[in-house]
Amino acid sequence: MKKVITDKVINRLTLYHSILTDYIEKNIEYISSPQIADLLHIDNTQVRKDIALLKYKGKCKVGYKAYDLKSLIEETLKFKTIKNAYIVGAGNLAMALAKYDNFEAYGFHISALFDNSYLKIGTIINGKKVYDIDKLPEMAERQEVKIVILTVPRQFAQEVTDFLVKSGIKYIWNFTPCVLNVPNYVQVWNENLIGNFLQFTVNHDNKKF
Amino acid sequence: MKKVITDKVINRLTLYHSILTDYIEKNIEYISSPQIADLLHIDNTQVRKDIALLKYKGKCKVGYKAYDLKSLIEETLKFKTIKNAYIVGAGNLAMALAKYDNFEAYGFHISALFDNSYLKIGTIINGKKVYDIDKLPEMAERQEVKIVILTVPRQFAQEVTDFLVKSGIKYIWNFTPCVLNVPNYVQVWNENLIGNFLQFTVNHDNKKF
Repeated sequence: MKKVITDKVINRLTLYHSILTDYIEKNIEYISSPQIADLLHIDNTQVRKDIALLKYKGKCKVGYKAYDLKSLIEETLKFKTIKNAYIVGAGNLAMALAKYDNFEAYGFHISALFDNSYLKIGTIINGKKVYDIDKLPEMAERQEVKIVILTVPRQFAQEVTDFLVKSGIKYIWNFTPCVLNVPNYVQVWNENLIGNFLQFTVNHDNKKF
Repeated sequence: MKKVITDKVINRLTLYHSILTDYIEKNIEYISSPQIADLLHIDNTQVRKDIALLKYKGKCKVGYKAYDLKSLIEETLKFKTIKNAYIVGAGNLAMALAKYDNFEAYGFHISALFDNSYLKIGTIINGKKVYDIDKLPEMAERQEVKIVILTVPRQFAQEVTDFLVKSGIKYIWNFTPCVLNVPNYVQVWNENLIGNFLQFTVNHDNKKF
């Protein structure tokens, strides 16, 4: 059985990856687990445990080789596997995500956007064209795209989701504030922006924000 | 000792909240834990456990009163507590976040943006003005703002963070792909967008995306 890497570990590994990118840019060859732990304000043993999962062992006293550890994280998290995706709903958030070139470093490639507004169809954002939503089923099949980033307004979220499911989309990265009703063979990741942040404010009593 | 609600629970509670909002809009008075569990593709006992934390007990057979449960979640997650915040860096993502009115429902109020570009300073996005970054320390002190949403380009992230820390900012919601070096009394929430999503692709071997 293949070992499943939990989302918490994946999240930390991507953060280690950011730190390593930074070290390599600064021409620093080695990094130690306490250095990583300090930057993230987490426990050193946690960092060691995560890295042990990658089956990489640091050198005594000098630590990990930054370049090797970075490559190993990229391999484990499959950054080199191209993951083609569409953005559905070409509003403000879509514009920001389409312009966010950093996704490419993770193998995440946004190839097109879709909308139903004639004002948006045909426009080009960061080299990516906005198509009529009606074209999605045929294009998704031909280009074998299974991932959609959903950024439509709240009131259309479920209707558009039903359409995507019928079009063969299997993974929905949901940026709408709605909980989507999908069949079991479709996976939804709810990008609950505010939920992620709320923990700051919920567990701090008597603090003024 | 006050019970700390974990981030996983907070995340689920905000999703329940979305579902309840939807039910109330549709004039449905009661909701059951299996209905919530089905929509989220999670276990019913998990939903019951989370709701038990709120000390709310459903009626036998009919379930929870949607309106009461929604209010209780809002109270627990302090949606009514106004959390004032600034956005620092007025690029594409900042535009999207400034236009995302949904934050207000959670008590999260973005009152101003800051940038160092003369092209952006003075412009108004969704009723929020972009100010010169030099004005931030004085404004943050006067308006008692402790939260910053950081969306500057990667190469300026640490420099701007040092400036924010000196200006008395205590919470940084970090949308840059950098790990920020901050003192212990400052809290950083790394909004690791891609990290959140990667779990879909990492644990599915032999699948084409």
